[in-house]
Amino acid sequence: MTDVVTGKATDKATDTVVLGRNQYGKAENHVVRINRDTDRHEIRDLVVTSQLRGDLEEVHTRGDNAHCVPTDTQKQTVFAFAQQYGIDSPEQFLLKLADHFTGEFEWITGGRWAAQEHAWQRIDDHDHCFVQHKDEVRTAVVVADGQERTVISGFKDLTVLKSTQSGFTGYPKDEYTVLPETEDRIMSTDIATRWRYSTTDVDYDAVYEDVKRIILTKFTDHYSKALQETLYLMGKAVIEAHPEIDEIKFSCPNKHHFVYDLGFCGLENDKETHWAADRPYGLIEATIQRKGAAENEAAWTGIAGFC
Amino acid sequence: MTDVVTGKATDKATDTVVLGRNQYGKAENHVVRINRDTDRHEIRDLVVTSQLRGDLEEVHTRGDNAHCVPTDTQKQTVFAFAQQYGIDSPEQFLLKLADHFTGEFEWITGGRWAAQEHAWQRIDDHDHCFVQHKDEVRTAVVVADGQERTVISGFKDLTVLKSTQSGFTGYPKDEYTVLPETEDRIMSTDIATRWRYSTTDVDYDAVYEDVKRIILTKFTDHYSKALQETLYLMGKAVIEAHPEIDEIKFSCPNKHHFVYDLGFCGLENDKETHWAADRPYGLIEATIQRKGAAENEAAWTGIAGFC
Amino acid sequence: MTDVVTGKATDKATDTVVLGRNQYGKAENHVVRINRDTDRHEIRDLVVTSQLRGDLEEVHTRGDNAHCVPTDTQKQTVFAFAQQYGIDSPEQFLLKLADHFTGEFEWITGGRWAAQEHAWQRIDDHDHCFVQHKDEVRTAVVVADGQERTVISGFKDLTVLKSTQSGFTGYPKDEYTVLPETEDRIMSTDIATRWRYSTTDVDYDAVYEDVKRIILTKFTDHYSKALQETLYLMGKAVIEAHPEIDEIKFSCPNKHHFVYDLGFCGLENDKETHWAADRPYGLIEATIQRKGAAENEAAWTGIAGFC
Amino acid sequence: MTDVVTGKATDKATDTVVLGRNQYGKAENHVVRINRDTDRHEIRDLVVTSQLRGDLEEVHTRGDNAHCVPTDTQKQTVFAFAQQYGIDSPEQFLLKLADHFTGEFEWITGGRWAAQEHAWQRIDDHDHCFVQHKDEVRTAVVVADGQERTVISGFKDLTVLKSTQSGFTGYPKDEYTVLPETEDRIMSTDIATRWRYSTTDVDYDAVYEDVKRIILTKFTDHYSKALQETLYLMGKAVIEAHPEIDEIKFSCPNKHHFVYDLGFCGLENDKETHWAADRPYGLIEATIQRKGAAENEAAWTGIAGFC
Repeated sequence: MTDVVTGKATDKATDTVVLGRNQYGKAENHVVRINRDTDRHEIRDLVVTSQLRGDLEEVHTRGDNAHCVPTDTQKQTVFAFAQQYGIDSPEQFLLKLADHFTGEFEWITGGRWAAQEHAWQRIDDHDHCFVQHKDEVRTAVVVADGQERTVISGFKDLTVLKSTQSGFTGYPKDEYTVLPETEDRIMSTDIATRWRYSTTDVDYDAVYEDVKRIILTKFTDHYSKALQETLYLMGKAVIEAHPEIDEIKFSCPNKHHFVYDLGFCGLENDKETHWAADRPYGLIEATIQRKGAAENEAAWTGIAGFC
Repeated sequence: MTDVVTGKATDKATDTVVLGRNQYGKAENHVVRINRDTDRHEIRDLVVTSQLRGDLEEVHTRGDNAHCVPTDTQKQTVFAFAQQYGIDSPEQFLLKLADHFTGEFEWITGGRWAAQEHAWQRIDDHDHCFVQHKDEVRTAVVVADGQERTVISGFKDLTVLKSTQSGFTGYPKDEYTVLPETEDRIMSTDIATRWRYSTTDVDYDAVYEDVKRIILTKFTDHYSKALQETLYLMGKAVIEAHPEIDEIKFSCPNKHHFVYDLGFCGLENDKETHWAADRPYGLIEATIQRKGAAENEAAWTGIAGFC
Repeated sequence: MTDVVTGKATDKATDTVVLGRNQYGKAENHVVRINRDTDRHEIRDLVVTSQLRGDLEEVHTRGDNAHCVPTDTQKQTVFAFAQQYGIDSPEQFLLKLADHFTGEFEWITGGRWAAQEHAWQRIDDHDHCFVQHKDEVRTAVVVADGQERTVISGFKDLTVLKSTQSGFTGYPKDEYTVLPETEDRIMSTDIATRWRYSTTDVDYDAVYEDVKRIILTKFTDHYSKALQETLYLMGKAVIEAHPEIDEIKFSCPNKHHFVYDLGFCGLENDKETHWAADRPYGLIEATIQRKGAAENEAAWTGIAGFC
Repeated sequence: MTDVVTGKATDKATDTVVLGRNQYGKAENHVVRINRDTDRHEIRDLVVTSQLRGDLEEVHTRGDNAHCVPTDTQKQTVFAFAQQYGIDSPEQFLLKLADHFTGEFEWITGGRWAAQEHAWQRIDDHDHCFVQHKDEVRTAVVVADGQERTVISGFKDLTVLKSTQSGFTGYPKDEYTVLPETEDRIMSTDIATRWRYSTTDVDYDAVYEDVKRIILTKFTDHYSKALQETLYLMGKAVIEAHPEIDEIKFSCPNKHHFVYDLGFCGLENDKETHWAADRPYGLIEATIQRKGAAENEAAWTGIAGFC
């Protein structure tokens, strides 16, 4: 086979290798949609990634782009859809994209669409002036596989701290154990969580707010014997309150706050002055599932930091 | 002269060069102080940098450390002072450090102490459970020069947006001018501001909250003809409301939100769907000063991004 | 059941939920090991993450830490092993950790150990003075599941560019297609790649250097009709040259360099002056596998950005 | 005075406040220039910031943009000049921009132009395939004030380490001193340096390479009694070797590598296994000047982290 441009022979698929899983698209399209229908404007501020899957073998093995819907086209579509359909919620917007690409191009049989949303709050209830709310970043992923749609919502970087009512005792010891037991320590983490819906018939904005509320409330209501226990209790509360959620995952650092030893200068320090360390940090990852619900491992592929 | 350790001759100060401005210390001591005097805990969460100035020539020119108060000692002092004196405000805490180091070591005649503060809010008014507030980061700098103390407070990363009531017209044109005039655009910026007090007799926490309030309110109350005008109006309002503030500076990006051209697919876009670009961005920096007040250029040295 | 500390009843595993996949440990232990056996020192500079898996249900559901090997113990072990055994290669070091934890604690049946390595080069072939080499970051992951060990090596952030001999034509068009075809463009990407070995009998350092060499060489030797094609050719070359590698994945941005339109001022621009955009960017992800080799999906779980 | 757009009265300059120092422009224009005059391509990859100063009072105080050369025009000029004049060196390119803006608009009397340059190296001496060199980032600043031009060159993020031949002894002790003296420790820093030329008649690329060479060599050639001493020796060597340089500044962290205490498990650790800490870190900043040369404080304004 000969390259049309260079005239040189092209490498071809061989007896040695096969193409495995692949996807491609346009990442981090930052679309800010203002609803100006009335004087009281509304903002949705999304960073959207579109990635297509399907019969894409020839693109890889021969550089034949007949099936390669350009990443630029994916970008144009994201912005066009924001204008044409508005953005009701990140999840609804991603579902529209999934339906479009799998419907428009017969060889595109699935894909992955993801978004991060930054929230804006009105300044003094002003009609068109806003301040960005940064406590956490909302996340959404839609995975399409043929007609199947899986929606995974979540948030990250919600930083919480309890200054007492946390301890760590009763753990196994070996020759490398140095840590003393404690029944009173600071517990602090950046909550990153993702939950998988069993349906697409969801009021995504309302559920988002409620899941966040449950997680924050659960963080406060118990003496924590381990961050693992606290994550489990959070997840259990979410699953119990939301029948449309089948599974929730957490990936949370244990952000160490070490009581600073001031013995050298004769000062007592009764858990008041701490050094907040950066690295290393504990890292706790757990999944809580609805008993008996179907699993869906494939939907989680490629999400960083969730085991 | 001979090196005590290696026995090799040491380079010395020569006829060619002199030592100019210098300072040194321990940067980014992350101290989290919990007030546990009652069941209702309080948090102050500061990242503190200490840097000393004075007669430090021999450290540089001869490696003679007789005047070199170790950076480790500066760190220990930061944590010890947090325990011994508590943290009333970042500014008060830095002033204590300044007095200590310039008082303790006669050859230390000045220095620069800086802090970033991360705020925490109670979860549902809970006694000891908190969520970190991330809309902005509070900053403070104390510069000591002999007995003189200059306090510069501020914040950064407060992201605001107005979705109308902003325009840009009437500017000069040349052969490189492409930008069309507009009387309706999105204006968005990350506010970074620093203000210099003329006194240390200040309720720093209260003034901080009020300056932030004034700046946010000012952002909302006018049609903006240029980001420069808006920054000037913010600064003027702060100076007018706070006699203890002599000067305020802003360093603010103009975060471009481009109306996305959807003509290619026949869609109208009446300033609804925007692409939020990252780089390049406008960058507007301005100083507003109290008329007749003394300047203090030296205090601003080394603060990034403020002209 | 009653909480030993608070006396309050503890939430328990219920009929509603079950614990799914989980792991925990200490992340980002930055260990720098100097071999000082001779005057010619050697450095290995690793950031190591250890995460354990096994029978950890009670930690989550009851806060019973009897099985919870502390993350602090994992940290101490990392540093102790660096001293005791040295660091021959990141992969060998992680394998030692895997064997230790699964051997030492019978309920720890597996885990995941990861490292990033920063390379240092001698300054003028000096015995003990080094400059950090930052072109790319080396990565390694070891996944243990019972007696099975899977090693995945790789690197990230190797930024390459070809200023010609790349094009993109022949792609499908629809109503959202704006992109013009081109037979001459800049192609640039940050190469992130991970390859899975079929054995642990490997000279990891030597293979690392050779895989990097193959990938760089392959980048240069053809007219690229799509980044997909180039990644495929890279992967094919690696698999063909290294029988001990069964699979290689790429996750690579297409870093757009747009020819800057200078028509407004009458200047021609024949692909000389470009604007290097940040976001959005293309994102191409592909897997190339040895034909007939066993798959191992589980080993890839939780690695960010690889489909 | 009445606002033309809103009809509302505009705030005006008052008896209370005056406008102080200000500048504005377009930041971080990422321009990649390929010289394609022969088959052997050349790349210059710059991120350029342009900021203008002059009679800009009315922009701030009245929103009158008659003097406000748009930041967009500054961007267009950057890209047009890259095409029209090429990029001989970052410094030459910034000087051209300075001359243009101060020459083109009479009320623009000065400004500040800055660049970061990323270097590219040929892959196997290939004509048009490159890999990015990331060991350090080159920086350049040109400050114009009327006809005066000041050029400050530099680099940042050059990370070096010496694994012996460094100590710290003989320092003053007080009640907060904990640090033990040592005559053998790791010294590591990220070198950030900026040097000011006394002339614009310079071969900027050649001097850049030579200054980097001198600094690296100087790092290796002595037992270091303090990072201050090492920076001073580096600066002295640069000033002595380059008569066209009047001043050089350093802002360098002392990146602590703590010998990990393994006594708990009975292991000796003779300065072999270290924990590389992130924060806090030492921070050493110093200026070395040519004796008798004129100072130029104003040129350094707004450069972060250099005292």
